[in-house]
Amino acid sequence: MRQRWKLAAVQMNVHFADKLRNLQRLRQAIRDAAAQQAQLVIFPECSLTGYVFEEKAAALEVAEPIPGPSTVELTLLCREHGLYVIYGLLEREEDRLYNSCVLLGPEGLLASYRKVHLPFLGVDRFATPGDRPFAVHELPGLRLGMHICYDGSFPESARVMALLGADLIVLPTNWPATALCSAQCLPMCRALENHVYFAAVDRVGEEKGFRFIGWSRIVAPTGETLAAAEHDQETILYAEIEPKLARQKHRVFVPGKHEIHRLADRRPQFYTLLTQTESTRALAATAG
Amino acid sequence: MRQRWKLAAVQMNVHFADKLRNLQRLRQAIRDAAAQQAQLVIFPECSLTGYVFEEKAAALEVAEPIPGPSTVELTLLCREHGLYVIYGLLEREEDRLYNSCVLLGPEGLLASYRKVHLPFLGVDRFATPGDRPFAVHELPGLRLGMHICYDGSFPESARVMALLGADLIVLPTNWPATALCSAQCLPMCRALENHVYFAAVDRVGEEKGFRFIGWSRIVAPTGETLAAAEHDQETILYAEIEPKLARQKHRVFVPGKHEIHRLADRRPQFYTLLTQTESTRALAATAG
Repeated sequence: MRQRWKLAAVQMNVHFADKLRNLQRLRQAIRDAAAQQAQLVIFPECSLTGYVFEEKAAALEVAEPIPGPSTVELTLLCREHGLYVIYGLLEREEDRLYNSCVLLGPEGLLASYRKVHLPFLGVDRFATPGDRPFAVHELPGLRLGMHICYDGSFPESARVMALLGADLIVLPTNWPATALCSAQCLPMCRALENHVYFAAVDRVGEEKGFRFIGWSRIVAPTGETLAAAEHDQETILYAEIEPKLARQKHRVFVPGKHEIHRLADRRPQFYTLLTQTESTRALAATAG
Repeated sequence: MRQRWKLAAVQMNVHFADKLRNLQRLRQAIRDAAAQQAQLVIFPECSLTGYVFEEKAAALEVAEPIPGPSTVELTLLCREHGLYVIYGLLEREEDRLYNSCVLLGPEGLLASYRKVHLPFLGVDRFATPGDRPFAVHELPGLRLGMHICYDGSFPESARVMALLGADLIVLPTNWPATALCSAQCLPMCRALENHVYFAAVDRVGEEKGFRFIGWSRIVAPTGETLAAAEHDQETILYAEIEPKLARQKHRVFVPGKHEIHRLADRRPQFYTLLTQTESTRALAATAG
């Protein structure tokens, strides 16, 4: 069982609808990260396909089933280098389109995730909302949860994965310029409120007038930043994490004087409104 | 109906167990804020009483019923200046001690709140956990929610108040030095994920080895900071807020291209774990 994992977060440009070129970039970054002894390499949302599609038909053309061509090809690299990879792509199932990410390892395809919360933006305007619950996947010595971009704006997403036992929550993302405030506070807040490692992996570059802002970040369960890319450039962030630290939800600052438990101190009896699907007063007040 | 509200957030030192001196400080700050045309004056957690009590009996000595002596006295000032006040105090009910805050207006006592999430720290070690649900209070043109310090570390708290229709969520707090990461990200994150105004009002000074760090902040629904006190000094922050902006949860960045709805985009069917009180895998894994 590994005690420590070395993460690589690949902040990269993505070439719109050019899967061959993007796949080549993913392969190169995996080799670079492997040379740095990374064990888990994380790419942005839609890093295989691009994001700002103007119609569903064009998006379906670059979408793949899961497993599919790119999962097969990148599994070979996982096997060659003995590492794990998470990357974002468009998934096709019959005539449905999902904004998905996959987790690959030397063993092959381990899991995939379909974006649950869809903004009205880019390809998400035509995608089917994710239809599977948030999940946590067991790697050797590491429990991993995945969600995508706008999912991170809903504190419920990471919270559910923390309650399922996640040590590390990854957020492949395509943050547009309007998400700057989110980029600057959300990874730290999600990490510390759940006492988990949190890796937000954004892209850079531009598609059809939408600029993506970078600001990828790997954060410790304390909320402290382990690695950050504040600038609008391609880069690979590296950080070593120790999953057992994320499992110590009981934090003792001064014994008998100052202790907290990030999960046991919850009071779920006061949260019942969170799971009600009926319109609330707030929704009614702001409808339309 | 007021369209705009001017807030005053009073970052102040508190003198341990010296209610007369603290009450004098509250009175002075209310007068100062009134002179600046503030309409709602917010004070830190336990600003009447202090926080780092070493035993329950000593805390009960300075605790008051609600309504009680300080609510009666400060209501006079609310009436004189035509404004509203929120301040923190220790509440006594029979032999129970609550860490509470109250909302006063020209009409008198409007509401009180008992801290729901208690850290093992200071007087909270001896307090009874809050036994009432989170609530939203209707002032002229402003819907207001209150929670205290450690409550803010649980995203469920502000989320429930946002779903109840809060425009402004206030967090009177006593952040110790270990809460620096929280102070730096939490107010922005709560504001933007719920699209509400958020006012974190911390104290400064020291009690029995615990230093309180200030960093009070008033944040707009976009996550942008309207006023901030980064330094460890007494100060009053002022900001004008426009409640109707917090009600526009549907944000249109580029019509037909980029729109989101901070509440309607939720997917509550995937949040059911949040309200379950049974031990979860995470809790079991980290018990003891």
